[in-house]
Formats: sequence, structure tokens, C-alpha cells
Amino acid sequence: MKIVEDVKEMQKLSKDLKRDKTIGFVPTMGFLHEGHLSLARKAKEQNDIVVMSVFVNPLQFAEGEDFDTYPRDRKRDEELAEKAGVDILFFPSEEDMYPEDFQTHVNVEKLTQVLEGASRPLFFKGVTTVVCKLFNIVKPDRAYFGRKDAQQLIVVKKMVEDLNMDVEIVPMPIVREQDGLATSSRNRYLNEEERKSAVCLYKALKKARQMVEKGTLDTKTIIQNMEKIISSYPFTRIDYISINRTDDLKPLKHIETGKTLISLAVFVGKTRLIDNIWM
Amino acid sequence: MKIVEDVKEMQKLSKDLKRDKTIGFVPTMGFLHEGHLSLARKAKEQNDIVVMSVFVNPLQFAEGEDFDTYPRDRKRDEELAEKAGVDILFFPSEEDMYPEDFQTHVNVEKLTQVLEGASRPLFFKGVTTVVCKLFNIVKPDRAYFGRKDAQQLIVVKKMVEDLNMDVEIVPMPIVREQDGLATSSRNRYLNEEERKSAVCLYKALKKARQMVEKGTLDTKTIIQNMEKIISSYPFTRIDYISINRTDDLKPLKHIETGKTLISLAVFVGKTRLIDNIWM
Repeated sequence: MKIVEDVKEMQKLSKDLKRDKTIGFVPTMGFLHEGHLSLARKAKEQNDIVVMSVFVNPLQFAEGEDFDTYPRDRKRDEELAEKAGVDILFFPSEEDMYPEDFQTHVNVEKLTQVLEGASRPLFFKGVTTVVCKLFNIVKPDRAYFGRKDAQQLIVVKKMVEDLNMDVEIVPMPIVREQDGLATSSRNRYLNEEERKSAVCLYKALKKARQMVEKGTLDTKTIIQNMEKIISSYPFTRIDYISINRTDDLKPLKHIETGKTLISLAVFVGKTRLIDNIWM
Repeated sequence: MKIVEDVKEMQKLSKDLKRDKTIGFVPTMGFLHEGHLSLARKAKEQNDIVVMSVFVNPLQFAEGEDFDTYPRDRKRDEELAEKAGVDILFFPSEEDMYPEDFQTHVNVEKLTQVLEGASRPLFFKGVTTVVCKLFNIVKPDRAYFGRKDAQQLIVVKKMVEDLNMDVEIVPMPIVREQDGLATSSRNRYLNEEERKSAVCLYKALKKARQMVEKGTLDTKTIIQNMEKIISSYPFTRIDYISINRTDDLKPLKHIETGKTLISLAVFVGKTRLIDNIWM
């Protein structure tokens, strides 16, 4: 596995590789877990070369969020990436990505007003800007995004479509712990008691799925039942529970089978967790 | 010369060509004049393939500007482009470029607040968005921009740098009529009397250059002299005259040789003309 830190070097390498090889790309913020690794393995199946980036992107953190404390462990990331079949691990520096006088942003304007975008107003502008930059540097044929960040996936797909980026976005299923908690680098913030409560997100989503399967389509009723489950766990505080159409993220009054996203954000202690299911 | 109208077809064509050829790209709004053709000829010298786009971009026109009346003549554009050595002439449709629910923009935030950006607040966001799209479709190695739209050139270069687009921006000198008027598709809006007055922009710029050469470095004095010249021509109304540093467009009190842009926008009758010199 090759390690690249310099942006220009990565771009040159990709340009040369592109002549006769396909590139699969897995952008990450590092502190790799099974979710990331499942993306890398899929990329390996579908492409000649797998590039993974590790970059904790300051642009997508607001004041007071966890940019400084976001978990980082380069040695461990290198070992896990190599095992998952990554060919090039790209560690750009902040100075190289955002030099002085950096001032250009990519913004998807409507899809980012709701859900995570409502709670974190700068988040998606930071995500789309860095993903655009990384795509221009790495030049992937395919890029892999987990469904756990459902809105991110939808927003990135929209950016790619609107700006005619020549890359296929491959959505990948959520990887879960044994008790159902979605894998996330932020899970490591949880203490033992909080970790137990954290399963409430998945429990609430499972309840929602059961209700739909049994014929309840009214979203207000479903959300109320989800709230009840989450409130029954200690240390929890709901940020939002929302049921939206998957293409335009319009809130739904009634479940539309095949195009509904049920998503939620819950603070467990001080840690904000998100999860979702696509129905 | 091949004519392409479909966005996906153009992208596929460029992808195939890129394997072993370099692409030079000349984005235009059509109604070609000698300025555009000089870009195409330079592109021909420096690349295997020349792609020219003709697209009157609605995103960069504000309400009340001349989007509807902007001159269009496809037959003439085809003839002139072919003579200038264009290999592929790309005529995308508005529906193909901006489908329903289009909502993603690229914005260079600081450089666009002054000069043309101050007079036309939506202009550059429209320009950078369409140029980003066209770069992703055409995949050029080099793209050619005239210095007449000086700020556009500076803003596009900044976008390319900030977003790591892998394309070289080649700036090209202003092409002028015999009396010094910069060539522009909008010159055709001028009636005979206005056409005579239109030379005032160049006269004012020439005066500025002379003053600098003779040692006047105080920009206020230079601007006052330029204003006097323009006001002496009938049908003229100054929008702005400005002297700025070329890299960050900060207004200058004193000329800095080698990095100064003197630029102006003047209404001649109802037609808004721009011109500039780099000192």
C-alpha cells in the first residue's frame, strides 16, 4: 500500500493511473471502522485501484463541535486500510487542502436545509466542498458512501448530477454492531452506560419498520412511538426524528413505500448519534 | 468539425479522447468575434483537440439584464469556429444544463464582491457554476479566457486552484478594433453615434497608462483624469472606474507595477461596456 500526503502528487498519480485503470475511492475522516472497511472491500471488487483518503475536514465542523477531539489514529488506520485492500492511502494536510485565502465553496442549496442541515447549518457546504476537491484530486470512476449518513449520500449524489461530475456514487448498507448500533467513529465517545442506551436509535427504527409492515402509514403516529422508545432509555435527548421522501427530502405525512427515509439524531450523553432506514 | 448537443455524449467523447490526446477548451456565449477566434487558434497550437462551447448561460444574467436579447447566430458561429480550427463545437441546451430541481452552485466568495461583482451580484456565481459544469463535461487540459473579462479570469483561476481542478487556465490578450474598442458580442447593440463614443473606454485606459509611464502613481488622480475623458464623450455614463491589485483585487491607492489592474464599466447609451489594462 502506497501512502501519499501531497495533493499534487496524488493528482499526478491518479492522472497517470486513469489512462488504463479504473479508480474506486473511499473518502473518510479516519479512525476506521467496519463501515469504512466494507466500502473499501466493495471498491476493491469493482475497480483496479482503491484510493482511500483520511482527512478530518475542518470545513464541516461548526464552532463548538468536535473537530479538535475527533478521534485520530494514523497507525491503526494504515493497518486496517491495507488489510481491506486499499492501494493508495491519501493523507492530505489541512494547509495543503485549505491554503491561506481559500474562498471557494460548493453548495447544494435545497436538500441541505432540512434534517442534519437544519441542525448543522455549515455541515453540508463543508462536505460538498471537500468531496468536490477530493474528486478533482483522486479522479475516481466510482466513489463509495455509506447509507448511515443518508442525507450526505443524497446531497453528494445531487452535487455530482448538477455539476456533471463523471463519477458513479455507490451507496453501501449500514454496518451495525451485534446489538444493532450503527458503526461510527463517534461511538468511541460513549461511556459504558451510554453505550447501552445508544441502542435506542436502532430499536426505534426497528419499531418504525414493524409498524409500517403492519400497515401503519401515518408518520405522526410512527414518530410518536419512536419518541416513546428513545425516551425510555437514560441519558438520551432527541435532536430530531423525521420521515422524508428520499429524492427531495420533503417531509411525509404518509409513508410512500420504496421512497421513504426514516432518520433520527439523538444525543446520548454529550455524543450526537444518527441512524436511519430506507423503506 | 463535429457538432455535439447532448451533454452525456460530449462527456463520453471527451473521456475517450483523453486517453491519448490533450484537449484545449474555449467556453463562449457565441456570436463569435475575433476575440473568441484568437482563443481557438491558440488552443489549436497547444492541444491535439479543440472544443468550443456556445451556451448563453441564464445563470449569469440577472432580472432585467440582456439574456433574452443577447445576440445569437448559430450558422455564423459554426462557420467561424470551423475556420478557426475548432474540432468539436458543443451547443448544450438549457434543459440539459439546468434540469428541473437544479440547485448546486460554485461560489468564489471574496474576489466576487468588487468591480463587476458589486454591479452584478449574481454574475460570478453563474459563471463559476457553468464553468465548473463545462470543465466536468469537456475535461480540458487547458482552457482559454480573454483578459477583457479580467475579473472573470481571476475568479475562474481562483476556483480552479481552490477546488483542485486539473486544468491550466490560459489568459489571452484583449483583441481590439482599429480605433481601440475591445471586441465584444455586445458591441453590436451600439448605434452609429454610440459606436463612436465607445472608444472612450480605451482612450481613458491609454491616458492612465501614459500617466503611469510619466510617473503618476496616485490612483485617485489617474481615475479623475479617466473620468474627465469619458465624460467628454456623448451618451456615456460611468458605472465604475477602479484600480486594483491583480491577485486579491484590493483597491490600490498607489500603482504597484506588475500587479495592477485598471478596469472600468461604462454605459454607452443603454449598452454596458467593460475594458481594462494590466500594468
